[in-house]
Amino acid sequence: MSVAGFKKQFYKASQLVSEKVGGAEGTKLDEDFKDLEKKADITSRAVLDVITKTSEYLQPNPTARAKLTMLNTVSKIRGQVNSPGYPQSEGLLGESMVKFGREMGDDTNFGGALLDVGESMKRLAEVKDSLDIDVKQNFIDPLQAIADKDIKDIQHHLKKLEGRRLDLDYKKKRQGKIPDEEFRQALEKFHESKELAEVSMHNLLETDVSGSALFNHGSP
Amino acid sequence: MSVAGFKKQFYKASQLVSEKVGGAEGTKLDEDFKDLEKKADITSRAVLDVITKTSEYLQPNPTARAKLTMLNTVSKIRGQVNSPGYPQSEGLLGESMVKFGREMGDDTNFGGALLDVGESMKRLAEVKDSLDIDVKQNFIDPLQAIADKDIKDIQHHLKKLEGRRLDLDYKKKRQGKIPDEEFRQALEKFHESKELAEVSMHNLLETDVSGSALFNHGSP
Repeated sequence: MSVAGFKKQFYKASQLVSEKVGGAEGTKLDEDFKDLEKKADITSRAVLDVITKTSEYLQPNPTARAKLTMLNTVSKIRGQVNSPGYPQSEGLLGESMVKFGREMGDDTNFGGALLDVGESMKRLAEVKDSLDIDVKQNFIDPLQAIADKDIKDIQHHLKKLEGRRLDLDYKKKRQGKIPDEEFRQALEKFHESKELAEVSMHNLLETDVSGSALFNHGSP
Repeated sequence: MSVAGFKKQFYKASQLVSEKVGGAEGTKLDEDFKDLEKKADITSRAVLDVITKTSEYLQPNPTARAKLTMLNTVSKIRGQVNSPGYPQSEGLLGESMVKFGREMGDDTNFGGALLDVGESMKRLAEVKDSLDIDVKQNFIDPLQAIADKDIKDIQHHLKKLEGRRLDLDYKKKRQGKIPDEEFRQALEKFHESKELAEVSMHNLLETDVSGSALFNHGSP
């Protein structure tokens, strides 16, 4: 870190300490901004939580899910196209029923019943598989894209904004002692960051529409 | 163990050794019996495997399942009637969606969609809960009763039969050296055990009918 960079960090830290410990008031952001921030925060948390819980809904066994993720990574590295599917519990039950049904023979009552129900369970597993793929493609993947891009953007801009605010407030206290130009620059940077943060949060909230379209199409 | 009991164990063990190591032939059971034994074996394995796999189908998360079993045991010990239910993944997803939907407000697109889908997922969880209870009562419990009673009976009788066969064969080799009465008794006991084993296996195979009735009613 350069000496200038270090000084800047130190100024910001000292401003933060006087705010937290000394109760000094920093520059307040307007209500509109705070409202936007709150909404964006809820949306971000909703997106992240819904992604997790939907994955758990589709693939409820955590061990099998973790194993599958690992296998998929391996087959991606190896360039294999066909990755293995999640072992649906319907399918496992169906396989077992069909296996024992065959051993018993379908001329016995129990064997015949096992074969019938087993085949139905296997078909149910196929339906679950296609639901799995459909929801992944049309619901989880778009939400994940939002989480990876829009939500990361917001976090980046908000963090930068907080840094520039601290810098601004430190310089505000020292007005007169430092060149006016330096203060003006800090104010400019602060406003620039605030605008970027606002734009990124608006972006997220406007994906609402495509979000609800996703719900209509890919609703689990 | 009494001296007589010890002698008997020793005779059986020595007969087993001469069969396994010396290749001595023991009394063979007839084909009908072997056929019955094979069928009963398949049925037993089918019942046990279907019980396990059906539980896994209904409650796919092993951690949650184990926790639930533990909690149920605790509430049984304490005499509590209401035991907690399995946390259906549909319900968890629904709860999360409704929670975030409310925070966002149903006047927003995303919030409204979350509320709608969340409520549906919660209803789906209720349906899964009643399926869970229904299949448990009408399918798993009767199968479990078969496993606990009929299959245990068969195992007990087959084990006893094998013991009595070894005793009989040991005495067969010593015919003339031991009182005829003793040999006659061993033969009688062997036939008695064989009949008991046959009856117990027939019992299991005849539950076929009620088994298939279970399938019709409680099929998962």
